[in-house]
Amino acid sequence: MQVYLDNNATTMVDPQVVEVMQPFFSEIYGNPNSLHKFGTASHPALKNAINQVYNAINASDEDDIVFTSCATESNNWVLKSVWIDKILHGDKNHIVTTEVEHPSVLSTCRFLEEQGVKVTYLPVNEEGIVEAHTVKSFITEKTALVSIMWASNETGMIFPIKEIGEICKEKGVLFHSDGVQAVGKIPVNLQEVHVDFMSMSAHKFHGPKGVGALYIKNSQPLTPLLNGGEHMGGRRSGTLNVPYIVGMGKAIELATINIEEKMSSIRAKRDRLEDALLELSDTFVVGEREHRTPNTILISIRGVEGEGMLWDLNNGQIGASTGSACASEDLEANTVMLAIGADNELAHTGIRLSLSRFTTDAEVDYTISHFKGAVARLRNISSSFAKQKPTKGGEVQECELHHHH
Amino acid sequence: MQVYLDNNATTMVDPQVVEVMQPFFSEIYGNPNSLHKFGTASHPALKNAINQVYNAINASDEDDIVFTSCATESNNWVLKSVWIDKILHGDKNHIVTTEVEHPSVLSTCRFLEEQGVKVTYLPVNEEGIVEAHTVKSFITEKTALVSIMWASNETGMIFPIKEIGEICKEKGVLFHSDGVQAVGKIPVNLQEVHVDFMSMSAHKFHGPKGVGALYIKNSQPLTPLLNGGEHMGGRRSGTLNVPYIVGMGKAIELATINIEEKMSSIRAKRDRLEDALLELSDTFVVGEREHRTPNTILISIRGVEGEGMLWDLNNGQIGASTGSACASEDLEANTVMLAIGADNELAHTGIRLSLSRFTTDAEVDYTISHFKGAVARLRNISSSFAKQKPTKGGEVQECELHHHH
Repeated sequence: MQVYLDNNATTMVDPQVVEVMQPFFSEIYGNPNSLHKFGTASHPALKNAINQVYNAINASDEDDIVFTSCATESNNWVLKSVWIDKILHGDKNHIVTTEVEHPSVLSTCRFLEEQGVKVTYLPVNEEGIVEAHTVKSFITEKTALVSIMWASNETGMIFPIKEIGEICKEKGVLFHSDGVQAVGKIPVNLQEVHVDFMSMSAHKFHGPKGVGALYIKNSQPLTPLLNGGEHMGGRRSGTLNVPYIVGMGKAIELATINIEEKMSSIRAKRDRLEDALLELSDTFVVGEREHRTPNTILISIRGVEGEGMLWDLNNGQIGASTGSACASEDLEANTVMLAIGADNELAHTGIRLSLSRFTTDAEVDYTISHFKGAVARLRNISSSFAKQKPTKGGEVQECELHHHH
Repeated sequence: MQVYLDNNATTMVDPQVVEVMQPFFSEIYGNPNSLHKFGTASHPALKNAINQVYNAINASDEDDIVFTSCATESNNWVLKSVWIDKILHGDKNHIVTTEVEHPSVLSTCRFLEEQGVKVTYLPVNEEGIVEAHTVKSFITEKTALVSIMWASNETGMIFPIKEIGEICKEKGVLFHSDGVQAVGKIPVNLQEVHVDFMSMSAHKFHGPKGVGALYIKNSQPLTPLLNGGEHMGGRRSGTLNVPYIVGMGKAIELATINIEEKMSSIRAKRDRLEDALLELSDTFVVGEREHRTPNTILISIRGVEGEGMLWDLNNGQIGASTGSACASEDLEANTVMLAIGADNELAHTGIRLSLSRFTTDAEVDYTISHFKGAVARLRNISSSFAKQKPTKGGEVQECELHHHH
């Protein structure tokens, strides 16, 4: 049996999505900006896809939804263009974000710091979120933008976006939310929540990798990141990726129609898996279940190094993660776990399991069984290894395990 | 019969390319940055695709090739990052380009002018190219970058890139070439031609829309446009679009293997079409045949407004263009034709026909026949209309025709 439990990193493209994309490779292949029939033949499908995205997040006709190549582009776009519009050509100089944002936000913020922008990286509480009152206290008259994720890729924890949105609106500060881990996992209703910009990525909800979008409230101005041939009303140039846009529309529709029902099914499996794993001694899951997206578990097993665990799970055909998919060759501690105050040893033991609507009960059973065996094996190796070579201990063991990749 | 003659705007994805992409949607769908088998399963195909691109342009091991979402991204990346690296954080202040670049270069240059950068837009000669000595005379000590296309999307004219590259090398100025219309149409050998950066786009050579690349000589530094999770060695973040990267590799291989042979077949069809259309009175083709990419004709028919011609061709199931695919609802003159000094009337009469390796002799025959009929029809309408309504003339006719879209 193969079990893919790394759906926060990326997802399988739903076969229904693959199917709707097919005609747009070799049959309806014209450039949608061309005036002839080869070009305009794609327009009905593109319009349908745009409507599917509007409906999925309950955007209004006054809002813009602009397709991008991924959420990394959407996040870079908002941060860099607010820098240009409000800081380079304005009187602001400050951005507020959190310590636990996705690398596409954090790394862009570090770039902006090199350009002279002041960035406040808000700390998170023991559940790994920032509270709205914390955000409020760091907004100044010089703040151009608040950028805070809707839900964490690593823990699944849902941030108080409605409250933060109200604060930003009241303070007159632009608010961007990286919605990548929220859209398709929890209801996202942009009539009920105030965000100026929200990033989305199709490959997190069973669409293809390489297409995302940016929601822009009230079609407000934002300097383009990609200048050029005035595609999408001049907001984002580049020939439209018709198959993927059509695929993203279908994927978001499939993910958000009857989302409560779909999610309660995923939640039941997630909870059963989590309950079983917590039967193991010295284990710890980050965040209250009801505060998380229904598919995510970040679990620590004291004494079991995360990379070793990943290797054992991988040998059992189970795909999991030690945290972000932006994995490095180095054995790094989980940054979110460090941010919530876990000690360094524990931060090396995080394993993220993220389910999808394609995860079956049989896969959950298999994972419980293999996971428990893995913990026993690794704790056993760890202790016997420590007895044999007391002078080197844990560190050598890490290298040994790492070597097996 | 349907005839697609707008291959400079975009191309049909080769069915062989569609086929190699298929497994990477719902079977091998892991994130390549993940450490488990679901992620690493894509690595052999990715490595193969990278090799295919290296081989196609004869890049060396010391060079970098970074996949992007399109050439618009590649072009924006080079221009904006040279601005940041050499102008904002350096002592340069000047960029040299031409009047006839793609909108993704021209529009980005206009953005940079708003940031205080000095941009020289070189004029072109009567064939629509800049000569190397012209470039030389405009490079100053403050010049950070020269950005000149390898071949024109509108005329097919090939620029003296080898000579311009030598000049830039000698002057110590960075040289970027938008190679979108050259790669796959003429041999591009980066061991023989000095360029620091070259942009490519898969959908111009029968690959998918939404993937491109940037060639970077000697892996030299260039600030990323998309910051984030350190994908592709930190050069361009964002989850890799595995299917499209694999597709781009296959497409560039198919386009460049035996390119001379493939192109002589396309050239023969192009020349036959061009000869036949030039039998019409008062017609004019931009640029000497042997100076052009072998698939392109930009033809003017005096007295026949381009949009009207496009409409008549479209009714005959022939897809052509009045120039750039970044078409607007307005009836604009062809900017390249204005740049080469055509009068305003002639600049409104340009029709671009661009063939591909899928164009057949029967399609050429059909196009010749329909095109000649269209010219007769439109010249007839034009003259009779002018007789009926002498006070309004051409302008009313334009609106009439435009209305039929």
